Amino acid sequence: MRCFAIFDWGGIKSEPSYRHSVKLFHIARNWKNLLAKCLSSAKTSSDPADIILRYSTDTIQGRYPWKPKPRTDLIGLENQSVYIAGNEGLGVVEQLGSEVDPHDWRVGDWVIMGKPQLGTWQSHTNLKATDLIKLSRSEKLTEVQAATMAVNLATAFRLIKDYYHPEDPHFKDGWIIQNGANSSVGQFVIQLCKAWGIGCIGFVRDRPEIESLRSHLIGLGQPDRTKIITHEEFESDESLRTQLKSLNICLGFNCVSGSVTNQIMKVLRPNSSLVTYGGMSMKPITVPTASLIFKNLQLKGFMLTQSLSTQPASAKADLMNDLLALVEKGQVSEQANAEIIDVDGLPKVQDALMKAMGGKTDMPECKIKPNDLITALIQRPAYKSQIRVPGIPEGSNA
Amino acid sequence: MRCFAIFDWGGIKSEPSYRHSVKLFHIARNWKNLLAKCLSSAKTSSDPADIILRYSTDTIQGRYPWKPKPRTDLIGLENQSVYIAGNEGLGVVEQLGSEVDPHDWRVGDWVIMGKPQLGTWQSHTNLKATDLIKLSRSEKLTEVQAATMAVNLATAFRLIKDYYHPEDPHFKDGWIIQNGANSSVGQFVIQLCKAWGIGCIGFVRDRPEIESLRSHLIGLGQPDRTKIITHEEFESDESLRTQLKSLNICLGFNCVSGSVTNQIMKVLRPNSSLVTYGGMSMKPITVPTASLIFKNLQLKGFMLTQSLSTQPASAKADLMNDLLALVEKGQVSEQANAEIIDVDGLPKVQDALMKAMGGKTDMPECKIKPNDLITALIQRPAYKSQIRVPGIPEGSNA
Repeated sequence: MRCFAIFDWGGIKSEPSYRHSVKLFHIARNWKNLLAKCLSSAKTSSDPADIILRYSTDTIQGRYPWKPKPRTDLIGLENQSVYIAGNEGLGVVEQLGSEVDPHDWRVGDWVIMGKPQLGTWQSHTNLKATDLIKLSRSEKLTEVQAATMAVNLATAFRLIKDYYHPEDPHFKDGWIIQNGANSSVGQFVIQLCKAWGIGCIGFVRDRPEIESLRSHLIGLGQPDRTKIITHEEFESDESLRTQLKSLNICLGFNCVSGSVTNQIMKVLRPNSSLVTYGGMSMKPITVPTASLIFKNLQLKGFMLTQSLSTQPASAKADLMNDLLALVEKGQVSEQANAEIIDVDGLPKVQDALMKAMGGKTDMPECKIKPNDLITALIQRPAYKSQIRVPGIPEGSNA
Repeated sequence: MRCFAIFDWGGIKSEPSYRHSVKLFHIARNWKNLLAKCLSSAKTSSDPADIILRYSTDTIQGRYPWKPKPRTDLIGLENQSVYIAGNEGLGVVEQLGSEVDPHDWRVGDWVIMGKPQLGTWQSHTNLKATDLIKLSRSEKLTEVQAATMAVNLATAFRLIKDYYHPEDPHFKDGWIIQNGANSSVGQFVIQLCKAWGIGCIGFVRDRPEIESLRSHLIGLGQPDRTKIITHEEFESDESLRTQLKSLNICLGFNCVSGSVTNQIMKVLRPNSSLVTYGGMSMKPITVPTASLIFKNLQLKGFMLTQSLSTQPASAKADLMNDLLALVEKGQVSEQANAEIIDVDGLPKVQDALMKAMGGKTDMPECKIKPNDLITALIQRPAYKSQIRVPGIPEGSNA
C-alpha cells in the first residue's frame, strides 16, 4: 500500500534542522488496530482563517502548547521523530485489526479523529478504535461536511453554547458580533445564529467581490437578523455605528485580533464577553483600559482541543452527535470553498498545498512559504515506493 | 459658615467653557439633613496611582461613565451647574437637621460617603443621612484611615475577595501578582495577602530610593511570601523570571496598563484572571492572542463604585464593617504618604492641589496642570465670604 504523508522530521520550532517534507512510505501497521484511508479537507479560500496547513505546521513548530507525539509506528523508521500534519479530515475504514470488534466496526465506516495531533495529511493511517469517533452515515452528510465538522462546526457550536446563555437577561434580544465572518467558523456561527434565533453581525475585510460575499453570508443567516459589515464601512459610517449601538450586542467572537478587534469592543454592550479563538492577523489585541473598568468587558479565550481535554472522553462523541443532528435538520450547509483532498500521490499533495497556502501575503510571521514547500518537494532525491503487505512483520519493507 | 469647595461650573468634557475653580460660598442647607465638615484625604506621593484629584477631575470631565449631579442646593446659585470634586474623605457631623433621628446620629459622628460623586473637596456639605455611612469609632481608627478606607482599602479587599477563591484548587499555595505595588491599593493588597496567607508579588518602577521602597513594601507583607520587583529587573534577570514561573501565580491585578502589564501575563499560570482596576500609564493593554487561546487567561475589569452599584444598598455598610474589623485586628496600617486636608481656606486648598498634582510628568493626557489650577485660583476676582445662619430660608445669603 502506497502511503503519502506531509510530515516533519526533526525539529520543533527554532531548530535549524527544521524542515517539512512529503514522503511516500509504508505503514508499519499494528494489525490490532483500524486502518483508515484519510480524506483531508482543504479550503481554497484565500482567507487566512481558512488555511488548515498553517495550523498543522504551527503545531509541528511548537507554537501550540503541546508537542505532537512522534509516530515511529507509522513508517517503521526507528529513532526518527516524525510528525504527521493535520487535525481535520475524514477517515474511511479499510481494514480491521485483530482486536477490533467486528460488531462495532466495519469496512467503509466513516471516522474522525477523537484526539488532537493524530495526523490527517497522509493517505492512510492506523489508529486505535478508541482514538476514533464513528460518524452515523446519513444522506445529508457529505464527505466535506464530515471532514470539516469536527473542528470548525464544533468550534462555532461550542462558542455559542458556552458563552451565549438565552436564559440570562443580558442576552435578551441578543446579537453576536464576530470578525472573520467569512471564515469556516464564522459561516457556521451565522447558520447557528439563524437556527437558534440570535442576531448576528459579521465583520469582513473589504474586497472587490464584497457584495457577492455579503449576499452569500447574509443568505446563510436570517435576513433581518444578519448584518455583514466591512471594517472600512464601520470606520467611515457614523450612522452605522449608532445603529449598532442601539442593538443588544451581547457577545463577541474574535479570530483576527489586531486593531480591527477594537471595532467589536466599541459596540459590545457593557458586561459582555469577547471570546478570542484565533489571531489570524498575527497581531495582539489592544484593549483600552476603560473598556475593562467602565464597560466591564471580559476577554476570554477558546480553543476546542483545550476545552475538550478538560472534559470526559465521551464529550467529543456527544458533541459530534449534536452536530450530526444539526446536519440532519438541514440547519448547517456544507462549508463553502472546502474540498476533499485525497492525499495520495505527489501531484495531488503539491496541488493541495498550493491551494492551502495561497493568498497568505498578510501573514508575515508564517515561516513556510509556498515556494519553500515546492522546493522541499522537488529537492527530495527519489521517491521510493514501498508496499506494505498484510501479514509481513511490522517494520519490514515489502 | 465659610465653605470652600473646588468645583467646576460649566462643562463636561470637551466644552470650551470648561474650567475648574475654587470658590468660597455659603451652604444653602436643607435643614432636614445632616451637615458635615469634610476632611478630604490627599496623598503626597508622586505615584500617579495616588493622585486623587485626577480621579475627581476625570469624573467632572466626563471621562468616567457617569456624570455627577449638579448640586444647586449647596450654594444657592440657581441655573448653574456646579459639581463638587472628590469621592474620598472623612466627614464629621456638625449639625443634625430636623428629620434626622437623634437616636441614630450625634454631632461628632464620623461618616463617609455612601454614594459616589457626592463631593468631598469642600469644607462643609449637607447630605441625607441615607447617603452616608457612619463609622464605628475605635482607638485604632485614625482620621487618615477613616478617610481612605472607603476607596483604596475597599478596592483591595474586594479585588481579593471577589477573585481569589482559596477553596478552588487553582489557588492552592497561590500568589497574587500586581503592578503599581506602591499605590494605595497596592499597599493594602500586600497587607491583606499577609493577613490571609497569600503570596504577593509586586511590580514597581525603578527609582533612586528603590531599596528603601522595597523594604517598606516587604515590611507590609509576610517577608518570605512577598516579593517586590522592578520592571527593569524582570526584563534583565532571566533567573528571576524562571523563579517566578515556578510559583503558582494564580491572579493578577493591574492599575497601570501599557506594556509593563505584559510582564504579569507572562508569569500568570494558565487559566488565571488579570483584573484591571486602573490604567495610570494612560496606555492600553496589549494582549497577545496566544495568552487568551493557549493560556486561557481571562481579562476582567473592576471598579468599586460600579461593583457596589449592582448590590443592595447595605453592601457598602457591610463592606465598611469588614474593613473596620481588619483595622481593629491591626491587619492594615494607615496608608503611607496620605494626609488629611481640611479644605478650609484658599492657601490650604492651593497647597493640597499642589501636593496632589505634583510628579505627574508621565500623564500626557491629563488636561489640568498645576499651573492652570493656580492661575484659576489667582485669577478669580474677590472671594466673598458668605455665612449661612441656621433658620434663614434656603437660598438666602446671610
